[in-house]
Amino acid sequence: MVGLRDIREASRRLAGKAHRTPVVTSRTLDELTGQSIFLKAENLQRTGSFKYRGAYNRIVSLSAAERSAGVSAYSSGNHAQAVALAARELGCPCVILMPSDAPMSKLEATRGYGADIVTYDRHAEDREELGRRLAGDRGMVLVPPFDDPLVIAGQGTVGLELLEECGSLDALVVPVGGGGLLAGSGTAARFMCPSTRIFGVEPESGDDTKRSWEKGEIVAIPVPATIADGLQLSRPGKLTFSMNRHLLRDVLLVSDMEIRQAMKFLFERLKMVVEPSGAAAVAAVLSQKIPSTGGRVGVIVSGGNVDVERFCSLIANLPPTG
Amino acid sequence: MVGLRDIREASRRLAGKAHRTPVVTSRTLDELTGQSIFLKAENLQRTGSFKYRGAYNRIVSLSAAERSAGVSAYSSGNHAQAVALAARELGCPCVILMPSDAPMSKLEATRGYGADIVTYDRHAEDREELGRRLAGDRGMVLVPPFDDPLVIAGQGTVGLELLEECGSLDALVVPVGGGGLLAGSGTAARFMCPSTRIFGVEPESGDDTKRSWEKGEIVAIPVPATIADGLQLSRPGKLTFSMNRHLLRDVLLVSDMEIRQAMKFLFERLKMVVEPSGAAAVAAVLSQKIPSTGGRVGVIVSGGNVDVERFCSLIANLPPTG
Repeated sequence: MVGLRDIREASRRLAGKAHRTPVVTSRTLDELTGQSIFLKAENLQRTGSFKYRGAYNRIVSLSAAERSAGVSAYSSGNHAQAVALAARELGCPCVILMPSDAPMSKLEATRGYGADIVTYDRHAEDREELGRRLAGDRGMVLVPPFDDPLVIAGQGTVGLELLEECGSLDALVVPVGGGGLLAGSGTAARFMCPSTRIFGVEPESGDDTKRSWEKGEIVAIPVPATIADGLQLSRPGKLTFSMNRHLLRDVLLVSDMEIRQAMKFLFERLKMVVEPSGAAAVAAVLSQKIPSTGGRVGVIVSGGNVDVERFCSLIANLPPTG
Repeated sequence: MVGLRDIREASRRLAGKAHRTPVVTSRTLDELTGQSIFLKAENLQRTGSFKYRGAYNRIVSLSAAERSAGVSAYSSGNHAQAVALAARELGCPCVILMPSDAPMSKLEATRGYGADIVTYDRHAEDREELGRRLAGDRGMVLVPPFDDPLVIAGQGTVGLELLEECGSLDALVVPVGGGGLLAGSGTAARFMCPSTRIFGVEPESGDDTKRSWEKGEIVAIPVPATIADGLQLSRPGKLTFSMNRHLLRDVLLVSDMEIRQAMKFLFERLKMVVEPSGAAAVAAVLSQKIPSTGGRVGVIVSGGNVDVERFCSLIANLPPTG
């Protein structure tokens, strides 16, 4: 388990290394929702997502011997870039395992942060097995994307900063993939402002955490089809779920169209670039899925890594919002 | 003329009314340019551009009788939205004169802030004459877009906040249309940090301020063809030019392609939506037009009002940056 002390310690390690991202407000958003909305803009974090916090907190905690052997990770997304940059900043070798059909832009971005890339055929090979073997062969430590106490504590600094800036919140709304951001930030909120109601947000087709939460045990689903690629998980993590089941007030579901509308709103009114997964919690707020109380609602905008071409194809020609 | 005292007074009036916009930094941008770049993000200002500052400062300074008669403005762009919202906030009637072929989105946005819209045929009618007549008929005060001491003092608060946050700057880089933002922010910099070198930035085809500055008197050019619609002026203002000619170290010119590359860079690396005019000063920095000194460079990002469709057509399919 992870407590407030672990999150505060992560916060000290991240000072000057990760951005303290701004909390953005919008009168239009407040008028539309009848609430006071505080957006924590992790799309403006280094590497373009909150993942940098957890990766850095994990790698900086390695022993000198472990650090010189290096780290590895399997990811085609934001975790890959986060581990690559954190490793470079800490002078630590880094290998990232990526599917051979990953978008060129993601390969390039990760290589640009100085990582070695090893590709695999995701139809023929098991990435977890490959990742473990790679870590074993080279003596490298595998940095997990969410199911790890130091990674969760790092992600918890998002919630910590939000509560520090806002003082108190009636609700906290967090996108849920593997559940690390929710476990960390939810824990920060639970300790700093115990009355905060904590909501997770998943894509309609990827409701593994909602089902697990309702059943009280981990439920696996097929890999969901959704534009929110960062939330395409088939089951929650063991450690994250064991924390989140006690933190959650409810899990809200959003459609891909609601996510696209939220991305367009964030573009037009807040002038921010947000990727589909990053806009999920805003989508829940904009589509009035949070019980309206006129209260203070913290919403995590978790990332902004999306190609120009994909972004434009997702938000062009939508009906007007607002 | 406008002095630091006027700008400080504007700053007091704007407190809690305009956003104190963030100053954004990027290690990638610093590495690419060899300088420390501080971006003042006025695309995150209310109404999406710095124009709100000047409009509010002008309207709040009216007498009670003038305020109840109302204000007018002629603009199809950011000034229209700024005057409309400032008038609404101050409980003041507002009429905006717009060309009948202005984009529907701009008409809607301005109407959305509560203004009455009067359209005219821009091929057959003279907008300045119409604007003055409208102001006369209805007894309304015309709020000029730049050539006015209170408007300039309002725009100067952008430079004031940037210098307050950065402490000192070796250079300040500002997009130039009518010249109000440069006159105000340049004045703030001149008084607060006299060694700051002040650069204006114009589109290559719209170099009226550069020509005027070189000649030492106002030079008019045909209305320039450029994607930077906010900088499509054919001559500098009288008051703004009389100030800017003493402030400027140089006027730098950027091509439309350099502006588009800057917009794409801001999207990909900073996750910010910036309109063409708003990206002009960043374009000058990215294309290495500021003499490199390894110094501290303040850059004003002046606005972010651009339709999704136009934005996508401008930045899709460009060669990669950075």
